[in-house]
Amino acid sequence: MSADPTLTLQQLAALVGGQLYFGGATPPPLEIRGVASVAEAAPDEVTFLGNLKYLPALRRSQAAAVLVAEDFAEQVTPVLIRVPNPSLAFARLVAHFAPPPVSFAPGIHPTAILGEGVQLGAGVSIQPFTVLEAGVSVGEGSVVGAHSYVGQGAKIGAGCLLHPRVTVEARCVVGNRVILHAGVVLGSDGFGFENDKGRHVKIPQVGIVQVDDDVEIGANSTVDRARFGRTWIGAGTKIDNLVQIAHNVVIGKHCLIVAQVGISGSTRLGEYVTLAGQVGVAGHLEIGDRVVVSAQSGVSKNLGPNALYMGSPAVPALEYREQVAHLRRLHKLAERVQRLEKPPA
Amino acid sequence: MSADPTLTLQQLAALVGGQLYFGGATPPPLEIRGVASVAEAAPDEVTFLGNLKYLPALRRSQAAAVLVAEDFAEQVTPVLIRVPNPSLAFARLVAHFAPPPVSFAPGIHPTAILGEGVQLGAGVSIQPFTVLEAGVSVGEGSVVGAHSYVGQGAKIGAGCLLHPRVTVEARCVVGNRVILHAGVVLGSDGFGFENDKGRHVKIPQVGIVQVDDDVEIGANSTVDRARFGRTWIGAGTKIDNLVQIAHNVVIGKHCLIVAQVGISGSTRLGEYVTLAGQVGVAGHLEIGDRVVVSAQSGVSKNLGPNALYMGSPAVPALEYREQVAHLRRLHKLAERVQRLEKPPA
Amino acid sequence: MSADPTLTLQQLAALVGGQLYFGGATPPPLEIRGVASVAEAAPDEVTFLGNLKYLPALRRSQAAAVLVAEDFAEQVTPVLIRVPNPSLAFARLVAHFAPPPVSFAPGIHPTAILGEGVQLGAGVSIQPFTVLEAGVSVGEGSVVGAHSYVGQGAKIGAGCLLHPRVTVEARCVVGNRVILHAGVVLGSDGFGFENDKGRHVKIPQVGIVQVDDDVEIGANSTVDRARFGRTWIGAGTKIDNLVQIAHNVVIGKHCLIVAQVGISGSTRLGEYVTLAGQVGVAGHLEIGDRVVVSAQSGVSKNLGPNALYMGSPAVPALEYREQVAHLRRLHKLAERVQRLEKPPA
Repeated sequence: MSADPTLTLQQLAALVGGQLYFGGATPPPLEIRGVASVAEAAPDEVTFLGNLKYLPALRRSQAAAVLVAEDFAEQVTPVLIRVPNPSLAFARLVAHFAPPPVSFAPGIHPTAILGEGVQLGAGVSIQPFTVLEAGVSVGEGSVVGAHSYVGQGAKIGAGCLLHPRVTVEARCVVGNRVILHAGVVLGSDGFGFENDKGRHVKIPQVGIVQVDDDVEIGANSTVDRARFGRTWIGAGTKIDNLVQIAHNVVIGKHCLIVAQVGISGSTRLGEYVTLAGQVGVAGHLEIGDRVVVSAQSGVSKNLGPNALYMGSPAVPALEYREQVAHLRRLHKLAERVQRLEKPPA
Repeated sequence: MSADPTLTLQQLAALVGGQLYFGGATPPPLEIRGVASVAEAAPDEVTFLGNLKYLPALRRSQAAAVLVAEDFAEQVTPVLIRVPNPSLAFARLVAHFAPPPVSFAPGIHPTAILGEGVQLGAGVSIQPFTVLEAGVSVGEGSVVGAHSYVGQGAKIGAGCLLHPRVTVEARCVVGNRVILHAGVVLGSDGFGFENDKGRHVKIPQVGIVQVDDDVEIGANSTVDRARFGRTWIGAGTKIDNLVQIAHNVVIGKHCLIVAQVGISGSTRLGEYVTLAGQVGVAGHLEIGDRVVVSAQSGVSKNLGPNALYMGSPAVPALEYREQVAHLRRLHKLAERVQRLEKPPA
Repeated sequence: MSADPTLTLQQLAALVGGQLYFGGATPPPLEIRGVASVAEAAPDEVTFLGNLKYLPALRRSQAAAVLVAEDFAEQVTPVLIRVPNPSLAFARLVAHFAPPPVSFAPGIHPTAILGEGVQLGAGVSIQPFTVLEAGVSVGEGSVVGAHSYVGQGAKIGAGCLLHPRVTVEARCVVGNRVILHAGVVLGSDGFGFENDKGRHVKIPQVGIVQVDDDVEIGANSTVDRARFGRTWIGAGTKIDNLVQIAHNVVIGKHCLIVAQVGISGSTRLGEYVTLAGQVGVAGHLEIGDRVVVSAQSGVSKNLGPNALYMGSPAVPALEYREQVAHLRRLHKLAERVQRLEKPPA
């Protein structure tokens, strides 16, 4: 990471309200040019120790300085800067050294293609090679990234950021301050067929996708339109990369859906649900509020609220851990049975 | 969903051949503007009860009316419309209230870039910012969506719908009436390397992808070209979103491949195979006709035809269910062994 | 596959240094037009038998000729060509019959949009509808595919091939001879949020993605930018389709990451690591050099080097295989305990 706003150690300590510690010597005239993790830091970078498990790595670190807790008492090469909360202080330094965020000037790029009756709010930025079909609306201050496609009659709210190459198909509705990363597809057809004499005949998927305010959806994730009505992502929910949301799924507010999760048709999640990476959820289920499902689990039944579930099929965490423990002891159990069958003479 | 073609209750009942039931009172002068699921329905929408497990939700539903079976005898708020088959009748209403499908006018958008010798059938629609490289052909009535790319010499049949942002790489062959959703990639290189003194050297992937008639492939799914010959998707097969098909895979006719499935190189599926969500299949296997593999299973061996398989590694369903049942009783088995070892005095 | 450079059987045998075998008869005047697998071969194609398990398929094959080992002694329909190493000889034929690779002429397509200060090396090919934002550099001889987007200040090295529709977001750095397949996203935001009174507040992701020389990344795979510093893919590593690499992950040199793998934030892989299809790896882990993790496994702990791991949670292969074996015998163990409890009279 580039680091224009160079700091001396003294300036850096002042910025985070920390105490420099040199072990009695004169402070070296170091110039700090950036931030990095313990393992990655270069000799002109500052790092932090948020967890003592990284102490061995810190001993090998090339960092110029390290933010540590006030009671830190180990001998390490980097200059110590003692602060009440190293993680928090580090976040402040990350912000200091961050390059200015990329901004997109308001205006409609001359290559953009706008259909009839497109409505654009004040200050929108329509980037190169976008297609906004007839009847699309985009709210105040939103950015529609290069190569994005917004289908007939779709609505994008205010303050949204569509990264390059997003597809929002016809009639879908996106709220305010929504972030859609590159390659997201909203409104592809749900996977629904009827068998007619051995052929799979497509069931029309005439519903929409509705994405509420403050949702973020990760790169190359896909959300299918409803068979009828809507597939619905509740406000404040955050979805990671390569996630699949099937038709008529309803996700409540403030959920966290980690990468490569798949949720099958018509399943409903409550609020504050967390699905860890690669979880799969079967169709037509109800997942209660504040449920957490651990990575790679497979959910095949309704899950009650306020609990942690693990495994495939997913069961309450305690039950899963017991299963795993028993499984690991299984060879011993088999030996015990053998001894019972043939007791030593 | 918007609902232009408003219906009175009487019109609605007539449309589905059902009997209105008001419990003796005069029918309310309701105007029905759309269809929705039991949980989602607004006071001007009609819903249906396809399964009695949704009866509690129906009691809380705001729907104006509900399609029910002829023997339905519960007391609920929505007006009842009794029909022989509520699901079927509902499908008719979905079609009635559906917005007109988006259509793409025939013609070549002026921004499209066509290479030498491109052949276009009658009535094709080539959308904005498409690239058709030299020697491409597109059959009668097909739509090539915005931002799509069709590589050198690739062939697209008649009556196809390529949604926006589809990539069909060089020389691939797509049949008739094929639907490719946004972000599909056909013809990326197969994942093949030879180790040469510690470096992975690319094995040329010179084959193609062949997609036969009436196939549908979901958003952001990927199908690699063959090392030589072809990766082949048989007629009538339907593939969901985010599916990975490796090089030289052969999928028979009329299969269903659900979201996030991955099929490794050179594996061959028979006809009417169903792979449920997130299934993984190892390479160089044979999967028999009409095999069903349940969600998240991992297939590591050939599978005989006409059977259901579950688990990772996948085994016949009965064997899997016994394993799971035994696993759940494992703590009891351990207790029983303990009692045998130390019988109560 | 088309086969322009037709060969007679004699020419073909000469090309691979093999011995034609006709069982005493006159060689048929066959013209060989292409290569194919045993099952796929047409009557004018040559195939090979690399493994005796394909012998039954060879008996049903329509191939004109087959490359076999020198000691092959079975009776089959195709003409035999005996060679020391059938696989190697076949690779030579694949190369012979391969169509000329698609090439992209140097130059900047008139539709490409180049921001201020873009620097292009000699012989680059900038394809239609690409966007190169301000400050981008592209090294000598690289191809940037149609509809690709390269964000502000990003750097692409020399000799790279970006297939159509690749997204490299701002400030990311790509080395030399890197291949990025269609739909790849480099530099989407890492999935990081802090909970502030029940709302998930975005943690700025200000780092980059760094991809070193000779890396290949498959279609629709995603690599998130670091929270700070870099997400880093080491030289010579090959990544398959639909893979997710989270923020601050570090992948060593010469790894193989198979399709649909997901690696969570800040995990570090050593060199020559192989993760098979659909593997998931939790965050903040260390995976040693030359580790192999089998398909669908879930890694939840650090893994020592030079070993094979299996299962979810992943354990050493021997332990996993014992678990599976015990699990399969579990019903028998239960029966044995029952007999101990109630011995036959």
